[in-house]
Amino acid sequence: MKEFELTILGCSSAKPTTRHMPSSQILSYRGKLFMIDCGEGAQRQFYKYGFNHNRLSHIFISHLHGDHCFGLIGFISTLGLHERTGEIVIHAPADLEKLMLPQIEYFCRADSLKVRIEPIPSKNAVIYEDNSLRITSFPLKHRVPTFGFKFEEINKLPHINKSETDRYNIPLRELARIKEGADYVTEEGEVIPNSQLVTPPSPSESYAYCSDTKYTPTIIPYIKGVTMLYHEATYTHDMVKTATSRYHSTAQQAATIAKEAEVEQLIIGHFSSRYKDESPLLKEAQQIFPSTLLAKEGLKIKF
Amino acid sequence: MKEFELTILGCSSAKPTTRHMPSSQILSYRGKLFMIDCGEGAQRQFYKYGFNHNRLSHIFISHLHGDHCFGLIGFISTLGLHERTGEIVIHAPADLEKLMLPQIEYFCRADSLKVRIEPIPSKNAVIYEDNSLRITSFPLKHRVPTFGFKFEEINKLPHINKSETDRYNIPLRELARIKEGADYVTEEGEVIPNSQLVTPPSPSESYAYCSDTKYTPTIIPYIKGVTMLYHEATYTHDMVKTATSRYHSTAQQAATIAKEAEVEQLIIGHFSSRYKDESPLLKEAQQIFPSTLLAKEGLKIKF
Repeated sequence: MKEFELTILGCSSAKPTTRHMPSSQILSYRGKLFMIDCGEGAQRQFYKYGFNHNRLSHIFISHLHGDHCFGLIGFISTLGLHERTGEIVIHAPADLEKLMLPQIEYFCRADSLKVRIEPIPSKNAVIYEDNSLRITSFPLKHRVPTFGFKFEEINKLPHINKSETDRYNIPLRELARIKEGADYVTEEGEVIPNSQLVTPPSPSESYAYCSDTKYTPTIIPYIKGVTMLYHEATYTHDMVKTATSRYHSTAQQAATIAKEAEVEQLIIGHFSSRYKDESPLLKEAQQIFPSTLLAKEGLKIKF
Repeated sequence: MKEFELTILGCSSAKPTTRHMPSSQILSYRGKLFMIDCGEGAQRQFYKYGFNHNRLSHIFISHLHGDHCFGLIGFISTLGLHERTGEIVIHAPADLEKLMLPQIEYFCRADSLKVRIEPIPSKNAVIYEDNSLRITSFPLKHRVPTFGFKFEEINKLPHINKSETDRYNIPLRELARIKEGADYVTEEGEVIPNSQLVTPPSPSESYAYCSDTKYTPTIIPYIKGVTMLYHEATYTHDMVKTATSRYHSTAQQAATIAKEAEVEQLIIGHFSSRYKDESPLLKEAQQIFPSTLLAKEGLKIKF
């Protein structure tokens, strides 16, 4: 069963265009929503695509350039207007706290929503974990401290081998324990080993977000083999000098990372405003890594 | 000749909707652009409607609620990305300085654009004046310090009375001086008095912006007789208690202000997200003040 659903809210680079919105995404996993980056207008996109803010408690900010975080204060403020209670945790580079807290204090002082800002450690680290999902941050190479994020399924349970559980007339109430690893003991005292009653779990799916960054193979160990990789591709490769000097990547470089990291699928985004049509970026990436998609506002992918 | 052109960039109230954008407007006067309020997404609207940021040097912020100012940092930041030079003056309630300067310092430190924040005085005051335009601020009644703005043409020059200037064969090069008030002396030494050579100037046009505010006739002296009045009308009058307790106005109240101030035309805006269709607001206002228009993103009015 496909448990992840990624929705692109915005995929432009810093200069605004009327064709794209600045960076923001929603990753949905088993009913929980995770926001990745929050450019200006992300809240409007969030509601436009029908998301429920009660399912969102964690926002991940890759770095403190405006096109990745200027939508935060508006979104937090709107959650307050909607009387959202509980807590929102913003995982972000350390400086966000000094920039954001005075704004929250001023504009949201009457709200009952608690906002906690969790600085992202400078080295790779697990920054969120629950029973089924682990989120890891790792450093990218950009002009300011910038982090990639990997979301991976953990503790996936095996499937029930229905023909075997039927053979022993095992009652439904036992199945949860069996999925957790228990053997089954029949009324006659016969022990049916767990291995006979289950088949291996589905493979763990995973998602990695890498934006903004120059080409850097140092990230490969962190994203090795992920199901889905979002990697920035601000420029076509004829502009590789510009890309490198601005600490951005070309489509060819994004595809090279995807290939070397042996991911299943690549989505490229963070397009420079110079491209009125992104098909040259797609074509360039697909020559190296055929399973490449272009990001687009409203694009939803399950995996 | 109609010299003012107003363009609505956004006209929702605080809770975002997918139908409207938060408050922002552009008033154009003889090639200069003035932005009034700057809700989140105003920059995108600004470029969408084709405005040139080199013509904009003054932004007026009515009050420090997020739906009127959260677009500022993004817009200023984008001006920097576009290498806009010179100065932008933001006229705003005094607190903006402490909220905005740390953000500008952090996000725009490499930019050559100078941003000056001019606190709006608590009493009515002239906050901008050039040879042909005067801008006055005056207090509104809202939950935080809030200001209305009046833009009025000044020093309008009389028209040349062409049949008289032709009669005396007055050369073209003299006409500018005559418009400024000079008499004309013929070659024979006859003095033709200025009053014979000109007809009165066209009436001075003017615009007033009043949002957000509860119903308050105290503003009438400041907006008396303006050509165009934008007044908030967050609710229909069946919700007058809510309007009053939240320091907002109903459509009926906005129309009453327009009528008592004897303005020529009223535009209502700042619609509550509860209205999926604003025609009840329009109908209610028109019963009291027939020359009422509904604000709408992209609406342009010349006057």
